[in-house]
Formats: sequence, structure tokens, C-alpha cells
Amino acid sequence: MADARRDVARLATGLGAGDPLELARAITLVESERPEDRELAEELVEAVLPRAGASLRVAVSGAPGVGKSTLIDALGRHVVDGGRTIAVLAVDPSSQITGGSVLGDKTRMSRLAATKRSFIRPSPSGGVLGGVARRTREAITLCEGAGFDTVVVETVGVGQSELEAASLVDVFVLLVAPGAGDELQGMKRGIVEVADVVAVNKADGPDRERAEQAAVAISNALGLFSRSAGGRATPVVTLSALEERGVPELWTTVEATVGEAKARGAHATRRSRDRLAWFRGELERTLRERWLARTGVGEKLAELERLVEAGSVAPSRAVRLLVDELDGRPG
Amino acid sequence: MADARRDVARLATGLGAGDPLELARAITLVESERPEDRELAEELVEAVLPRAGASLRVAVSGAPGVGKSTLIDALGRHVVDGGRTIAVLAVDPSSQITGGSVLGDKTRMSRLAATKRSFIRPSPSGGVLGGVARRTREAITLCEGAGFDTVVVETVGVGQSELEAASLVDVFVLLVAPGAGDELQGMKRGIVEVADVVAVNKADGPDRERAEQAAVAISNALGLFSRSAGGRATPVVTLSALEERGVPELWTTVEATVGEAKARGAHATRRSRDRLAWFRGELERTLRERWLARTGVGEKLAELERLVEAGSVAPSRAVRLLVDELDGRPG
Repeated sequence: MADARRDVARLATGLGAGDPLELARAITLVESERPEDRELAEELVEAVLPRAGASLRVAVSGAPGVGKSTLIDALGRHVVDGGRTIAVLAVDPSSQITGGSVLGDKTRMSRLAATKRSFIRPSPSGGVLGGVARRTREAITLCEGAGFDTVVVETVGVGQSELEAASLVDVFVLLVAPGAGDELQGMKRGIVEVADVVAVNKADGPDRERAEQAAVAISNALGLFSRSAGGRATPVVTLSALEERGVPELWTTVEATVGEAKARGAHATRRSRDRLAWFRGELERTLRERWLARTGVGEKLAELERLVEAGSVAPSRAVRLLVDELDGRPG
Repeated sequence: MADARRDVARLATGLGAGDPLELARAITLVESERPEDRELAEELVEAVLPRAGASLRVAVSGAPGVGKSTLIDALGRHVVDGGRTIAVLAVDPSSQITGGSVLGDKTRMSRLAATKRSFIRPSPSGGVLGGVARRTREAITLCEGAGFDTVVVETVGVGQSELEAASLVDVFVLLVAPGAGDELQGMKRGIVEVADVVAVNKADGPDRERAEQAAVAISNALGLFSRSAGGRATPVVTLSALEERGVPELWTTVEATVGEAKARGAHATRRSRDRLAWFRGELERTLRERWLARTGVGEKLAELERLVEAGSVAPSRAVRLLVDELDGRPG
């Protein structure tokens, strides 16, 4: 344990010095599900926390094939050229199932990876479902602790993980692309609504005009749906990640969006709301896990869930049955 | 207790006979937060469950002033004329705070209330936050137990409660109205996305053309957002609840939507998913309440939440602190 604590101190120091290898090691630690690693990871995050929170956190989300990696490669270099440092974290929930890692591959952001002031973290492979947000939150904190002033979270369009990603960042950029015919790739309801900025990619070659038309259509559509009373309209931009056109303009829009949120006080609110959600989510998960670890609970729960799903036991009664039976047992 | 059980048996029998007074009494029981009433309510719901589930469950949601009550009054009479029976449940989360009951007022659906084959339940006044979904689920079950083959849930547009309502019903109808200028009343993002049918009301008098234009705009906008792969387009209809035009067509659309969902197997899936969500939500709430009832937990939790929100304690560590400290205490 004394050794482990020295490890945490060393990791924290290495992080503070901005050592990318130490940052990679630290992220591996927060991704681990081993209980002893979890404890160290929490100490490390706690040690880093006073230095964290100062970065601009951006999510880039979109369906496979819309050009997220190409965009981040170009956007990252633009940001670095402007004097910032950038850490890219890829979140791919599908890799939890396959154990593979298709996103965040360094070779897909090769030009950004070649710059000194960048850090690219491939998607974590494996891990528990629902742990994505926690690990990503902790990884963002570590990147900030390592001195990165821009953190980009790349997520692939699979519903829940994107909604989670939106709560982790300051600006959620939804990247879409003109598809075959009138279709738009990546415009899924439920995801559009959390977007702070919509970017239409592939505004190049023969698709350029269609991308511009799509941007107008999206803008009109979003205009119908008020986010909240007095909320500003969601900016919709077009760009070509491939030709690197519109990329500086996207960054300007991102910065303006954060600036406006800061001016309204919405930025600080969003951050503290996320911390609270993080805490509550963790607490709920921990309590449920501990409770499920009690003898027999898992089996009984599974049995009752089957009965409830089939409609043969009322949900409220199932809860009472489960809780009452447990009260008769040693914890 | 023996008396109480006889009460449940009597209520269940009265319900089975379709007695509206017994139904009103039964709903009052499920709305009660007294522990002894809860137990009886659960027994009653359990007793009724075998007869429940056969109704067509429809939510009508929209901002205040879009004409929900007028529509339900007209729609209800159309449904009754077609040989069905209808129960209307109003859900108004704001009445939890004020203790008042502004929705579901019988006088606002006076013509429907005057028909024999209808039952109208004003909004429950008071109660715990988060209990709306549970009470509404149980009330739907009771209405079905009382033989109503159509249950309409009226909800006012306040975010979370509408998303909850969507999970309770077979068809979620979002009612909007042309507002002043180009605005649409009731088109809030996050709510539009759960709509199975969008109805534009007030297609009458000088607003008729604007309502038709709004329907086209909404239809185009929704066309951009694919609900899921292979999902069908959300129907958008126009109507005048006041002049009772378009109301039969709305009902035809609702029935077609359910028919299509049944044909795809989506209807049964939605129902069993809702039962499971009901169970899990109840279980989580019960466990959290029991846990919070332990001495000192509430205070400690509130203190840690403040620290987490302020960013001075890492969320993961706050969870560990809370849980570890509790382990040292008697339950």
C-alpha cells in the first residue's frame, strides 16, 4: 500500500510535468476495474483535481463515416497552431463488447499525433457498461492535470453514450454529412437536441452544394424546436474536414459558444451540475452493486424482473417482495 | 388488517363492475403516500392486474393554452360514439407544488363528462416528486381493471413528466398550436422526439392557413431526424378542437399508429419495457429512501454534495467516503 501510494505521488508529479507517458499510464489506471486500482485511481484524480477544470472541453460526435477523425485531426492542428495544447479521448461503447478499438487510432489522426502539443488516447477496450462516462470524466480530469487546455472527446453515435458525453463537456459538436439522396448521416433525434453546434461535413467537391442546403434545412428545423425560453439558436456551420475549409470557423463558433455560456453563467452551472451528476451516478451504482452482491439478491431480482416483464407480478409488489425478503436476511 | 383486506376485495369487486365511484376511490388510494395505504394500493393493483393491459393508452401533451382539454373533450366524445369507453387522467406536476389542481377539471371537459361511458380524473394534488409516473401507471391499471378500453393521459409540457408519460402509453400525441408570429407553442426539443403523432391545433378561422404551414414545416423538420433505422415518419395532422374538425382523423391516425406498432411487435415490447422500467424505478427509489432513512446519512450526503458541486472533493472519493463511513455504523 505504501508502494502504491508512492506510485500515486509519482504519477501525479509526472502528470504535473506534462509527461504524456505518465498521462497514458494514469488513464490506464482509471480505466481499470480492479478494486485496488480503483482506489489508487480515485486518489490520483483527487490529487490532480485542484489543477483540473481549466480546459475547454469539446465533444465531437457523429455517426460512423461522417469524418470525425479527419475533422479532429484538422481542428486539433488549428488549435495547436493557435498556441493551445490538445488532448483527444475517444469513447467507443461498441469496443466494450468487441474488446476492440476502432476509434481514436493514432494512425487516423496522424498529422495531429505528430505535433508536440497533442495527446491522443485510443478508445478503452473492455470494461463495464455505464462506466464510460465515469472513466471519461476521470480521463478529462487527468488530461487537465497534465496541463492540456483543450480536451476533445470523440464519440460515435450510439444514443446513450452521446447523451452522457454531452454532460461531460462544455460544447457538444454534432457532425453530420450529406448522405445518399436526401438523407443526412448522423441526424438522430435525441442527439440533435443536445447539440450546441451542428457541423455539416463534406462540403467539398460535388457534395458542396448539398451540404450547404442541408445546413439551411437543419437550421430551419432547429429553429422550430426551442431549447428553452430565451435560449439562443443552435449555430449550424458547413465545413470540409478533408480540404480543411471551415475548420477555423468551427473553432471560432465553439469558442463563441463557450464565451456566451460563460457570460450567462451557464458554463459554471453546467460544470457543477456535471460534478453532482457524476457523484450521484457513482453513488447509485455503488449502492446497487453492494446490494446486489448480497447472497441471493441477484437471483431473486432476475426472477422478479422476468415476472414483471411478463406482466404476472405488479412492479410495486415485486419491489416490496424483494425488499421485505431481504430484511429477513443477514446483510 | 382483516378490515383493510376486505376493503381491497370490495374495491376490486366494485372496480370490476365498472363503478366510477369505486374507481375514483381506488385512484385516491394509489395516490396516497401513507405506508398503510401504499400496501393496500399495491394489493389492489395486483388484484386488478390480470384484467389490465387491454386498453389503448394515449398521452395528449402540450404547452398550456394549446387546447388539450378542448381536444380531449372532442376526441373523447368521438371515441365514445364509436362504441368505446374512455378514462381521462390528468397529470400536472405543478400541482405537486401548489397543491392546486388546474388540469383535468371536469368543467373543462363538460361535454365528455356528461357521457355515460367516460371517466375523468382531475390532477392529483400534492405528493412526492417522481411519484407522478408511478401513480399514473397504477391509475391506468385501475381504469383498465374498471373496464375502460381507452385511457387518455393529459400532461402539461414540463420536460421530465412528459418523457415519463411517453413511456406509460402506447401513443404519445404532441399537441402544438400556431403562436404569435412564426412561433409554435409547445415545440420543445426533447419532447418532439418522443412524439408518435404531432397534431397542430387551432386550424380554424384566421389561423387555419398558418396551422397548415406549420404542419408542413414540422413534417419537414421531423423528416431530417431519423428516429431509428427503418423507423417510419412521424405523422403530423392539423385539426380544430374548437370546431371539432380533424378529430376523427386524429383518432384514425392514433389507431393506425398502434396497429402498425402491434404488427411490428413494437407494442408488446414497449409494454414489457415499461413494466420493467416501473419495477426498476420503484426499486431504486425504495432502496435510496431506506438508505437515506439511516441516521446521519442525509446530513452527510448533503455536505458531500455541496463539496462535490463546488469542485473541492472528487465525486468518486465522495462516494467512497460516504459508503465507507456507513459501513462503520449500525444499519
